[in-house]
Amino acid sequence: MAGSTTQSTSRTRSWWGWGWEDAHPDDAECTAMGALLPGTLARPIPVPRVRDLDMADPAVEPPRSLAHLVTADPGDRAAHAMGKAYRDVVRALRGRPGRIPDLVARPTDDRGVADLLEWASDRQVAVVPYGGGSSVTGGVEYRGDAHRAVLSLDLTSMRRVLEVDTEGRAARIQAGTLGPILENQLRPHGLTLRHFPQSFEFSTLGGWLATRAGGHYATGRTHIDDFVQALHVVTPAGTSSSWRLPASGAGPSHDRLFLGSEGALGVITEAWVRLQERPRHKASAAVFFAGFPDALRAVRTIAQSDLSPANCRLLDAGEAALSGAAQDRSAVLVLGFESADEPVTARLERALALTRSHGGRHDSAAGANGGPGGDAAVSAWRSAFLRMPYLRDGLARMGAVAETFETAATWDRIPGLIDAVRTEVAAAAVKATGHPATVNCRLTHVYPDGAAPYFTVLAAGRPGGEDSVWDDLKAVAAEVLHRHRATITHHHAVGRDHRPGYDRQRPEPFALALRAAKGALDPRGILNPGVLVD
Amino acid sequence: MAGSTTQSTSRTRSWWGWGWEDAHPDDAECTAMGALLPGTLARPIPVPRVRDLDMADPAVEPPRSLAHLVTADPGDRAAHAMGKAYRDVVRALRGRPGRIPDLVARPTDDRGVADLLEWASDRQVAVVPYGGGSSVTGGVEYRGDAHRAVLSLDLTSMRRVLEVDTEGRAARIQAGTLGPILENQLRPHGLTLRHFPQSFEFSTLGGWLATRAGGHYATGRTHIDDFVQALHVVTPAGTSSSWRLPASGAGPSHDRLFLGSEGALGVITEAWVRLQERPRHKASAAVFFAGFPDALRAVRTIAQSDLSPANCRLLDAGEAALSGAAQDRSAVLVLGFESADEPVTARLERALALTRSHGGRHDSAAGANGGPGGDAAVSAWRSAFLRMPYLRDGLARMGAVAETFETAATWDRIPGLIDAVRTEVAAAAVKATGHPATVNCRLTHVYPDGAAPYFTVLAAGRPGGEDSVWDDLKAVAAEVLHRHRATITHHHAVGRDHRPGYDRQRPEPFALALRAAKGALDPRGILNPGVLVD
Repeated sequence: MAGSTTQSTSRTRSWWGWGWEDAHPDDAECTAMGALLPGTLARPIPVPRVRDLDMADPAVEPPRSLAHLVTADPGDRAAHAMGKAYRDVVRALRGRPGRIPDLVARPTDDRGVADLLEWASDRQVAVVPYGGGSSVTGGVEYRGDAHRAVLSLDLTSMRRVLEVDTEGRAARIQAGTLGPILENQLRPHGLTLRHFPQSFEFSTLGGWLATRAGGHYATGRTHIDDFVQALHVVTPAGTSSSWRLPASGAGPSHDRLFLGSEGALGVITEAWVRLQERPRHKASAAVFFAGFPDALRAVRTIAQSDLSPANCRLLDAGEAALSGAAQDRSAVLVLGFESADEPVTARLERALALTRSHGGRHDSAAGANGGPGGDAAVSAWRSAFLRMPYLRDGLARMGAVAETFETAATWDRIPGLIDAVRTEVAAAAVKATGHPATVNCRLTHVYPDGAAPYFTVLAAGRPGGEDSVWDDLKAVAAEVLHRHRATITHHHAVGRDHRPGYDRQRPEPFALALRAAKGALDPRGILNPGVLVD
Repeated sequence: MAGSTTQSTSRTRSWWGWGWEDAHPDDAECTAMGALLPGTLARPIPVPRVRDLDMADPAVEPPRSLAHLVTADPGDRAAHAMGKAYRDVVRALRGRPGRIPDLVARPTDDRGVADLLEWASDRQVAVVPYGGGSSVTGGVEYRGDAHRAVLSLDLTSMRRVLEVDTEGRAARIQAGTLGPILENQLRPHGLTLRHFPQSFEFSTLGGWLATRAGGHYATGRTHIDDFVQALHVVTPAGTSSSWRLPASGAGPSHDRLFLGSEGALGVITEAWVRLQERPRHKASAAVFFAGFPDALRAVRTIAQSDLSPANCRLLDAGEAALSGAAQDRSAVLVLGFESADEPVTARLERALALTRSHGGRHDSAAGANGGPGGDAAVSAWRSAFLRMPYLRDGLARMGAVAETFETAATWDRIPGLIDAVRTEVAAAAVKATGHPATVNCRLTHVYPDGAAPYFTVLAAGRPGGEDSVWDDLKAVAAEVLHRHRATITHHHAVGRDHRPGYDRQRPEPFALALRAAKGALDPRGILNPGVLVD
């Protein structure tokens, strides 16, 4: 077998928590954060070590012909055991991670993927496709014991932009390409995908496609789905390669069946994606609202206009305070416009006028490439956004519950839904821990017909059982979502954590169709068992 | 059984040709048109009569409980035998229509649809879902003899707008609602779907959804797919009802599996669709180009800008001459902008400036709600667009070949594709008939990464074998499309006529998945046999 593959960077990825090891808050910072939250621990749970894990020897060996693609390095295996949800971090901190894969494979081409799938099908080895490993819904771990062994199929050695069509603004890109590596390769061509999920540094094109990730744009083309021109998917039943087409009406969209299939139908190995010129014109502003209902109306008006802001994120008072965008109990709307071919200040001005008619306040007149009042609020929100997952892990070390979840619903349901989530999840936290909890909300994406609320929960834990406290709160949240016919996920995917909610939401005939499709493409049931269908 | 259901209008639909009987060109007009095309007949083929058809008695009778929904009226049966492709019209004119369905059913609710499917499953009766009957790809007829009988399932008695959500701009609408009936019901709410295919008067919401119809918008949201909020589909395995959601990332999109399923997976009975306010601001213009390559570059520049014209249709010189938009061998770009919330003249002016930099000419400065030079060209094109199918039927009566087909491809392939189609189809027509042929092209929809060319073929026929001449030309065209990796259909659907091209284009693993899905939802194989999968 091959030795452990090292990253080309000198920074080290955390095997148990978010992102880079050196970006994690240290013990003192953790303690300071914990002190702000009643009911947390006095000192942080120690950072877990791979060598303390109880790791069995691999139950299978790869054949000689594939051995160069496969490693059983304990660090690699541990790092591929789970995604990066709060409950994953807690399980690692408490020394009970999910099942550790027997082997990690890093194929470098389609052939390697196909050979690994063939071997795994023959040997009843579960294959868990793995991109950046940033799943927050249990998408990259194995649960159960129906397979002889578990192989984590890490695609990140397939990380090249293979072709660029500058005339038609598209590129063929390997699925294992992490966000920054992808943009770095496009930059010399003056093009960009502009898909910037919060996980951008630590997630791959293939992961975005397999989970229908939400990206940069708060309106319009919010999901990666709309940027797909063609897909290349290796399945146990053969390779599916669709033509590059700007649009087609030939039968149900085959690409749309694989988008969101979360590795259960095949392994996406490359895609042609639609690109754009880099924006030359930008303008942004923060708008403050005394009341959330007014802010909601303003946002709906903007979403139903022709304005198409790139950014249109509404923070409730709690979220605004938490991110430093406002400390006066205002709700804050972060608005941003961008364009590669014309100035956008007129659009920002018109959006600001719409917010004023709903009671919105901003400090000054709009200016090109920067913008009006609230710059500090905008940049406070932006840095908090990127820092947030690290702080979450710090809070987890203090025994706190700190996690997010998201959904989407039509406008008629939005106010009642947000109220119910806030009230019922907070009440459940008090009941479970005896301490008050914070439940904040922001809208991350808005549509003419609805919006995507994103909730942040901060609560005390129960020492040693922090993940089960969270599981209880999440079950309450899922119940509220179901009652309001709000989707179990707008852009975090189903994974294993959202299966109960997904199973209730999905129309039963579609479940029949999906199960049949899975049976046809993955007859031995080796592909990411447990996600989407059984 | 119920008697023949009459339309509420006093006008009569043609059973064999396009649209209204009274809108068809008369014999004199047909003769005049034929005289312009070498190699056509001296006088028109007579209009076919239902009473001349050799129509067997129905091979089955519906059960008493469903008899009130079903008719065996010969006129109804004849009118439901085929769609409205050129080859359908010719087959009717030549007295050899496709297999005439044994029965026509007009359910009025989901229950009726489900009961009919259950009965048909039990009795091995093929069920062909039928909306407005405007298919031009053999989508609504039965071919073969594997079923005991054929039932045409006409949805047009389900034609109501059931609910309107004005806040979230959406409506729940029954699938059998024809275009004008749909818009008439939305008008009092100040809302519109703005889906205006050429078949608008004679096609239904359900038909648009089942075939992924292309609509009003030449850029952006070109297909009905993007306007779907939720679908309600009755299948033999149960009813699929998705939640109203503005967006979701929960698994592969279930609605997208049914969109484009052409009645093979289930019967779409209603949908929640996204609506818009009626546009208050409009501006349009025609731009003239001496050369088609310059025009292509101009259109691509506009498609890659932020301008989002509602109309952006490029006619080549032949198409411009045919529609009366230009007679000087110019290519003509018909540009149109519209908005419900802001004036659009600035956008039109900017688009015109872009066209000028590629050699485009227009007559005067842009004006609001009307616009600059070329008004006559715009309206000439518009009336020709609506009149075209009637003229096609007139030419068919003169023994001519007169038909269209459409595709889409990425920009790098567009010039070569269009050239090859023009050259090879015209050469094939000369070879088949000994007479020169006209092959014109327009772009109906444009995208940042490609465009949808639409071809019109006018040629002589071979008396009595006009449809086989067309079949030969279409096979040549399909071969060219395949060689250029251009889709077999951008918005006309697959039906039965496009099956060979579709089967070659569709990735084989998706075919496996689709076949499995069909087996799960329609285990007896009664739903629209022959489309998409066998």
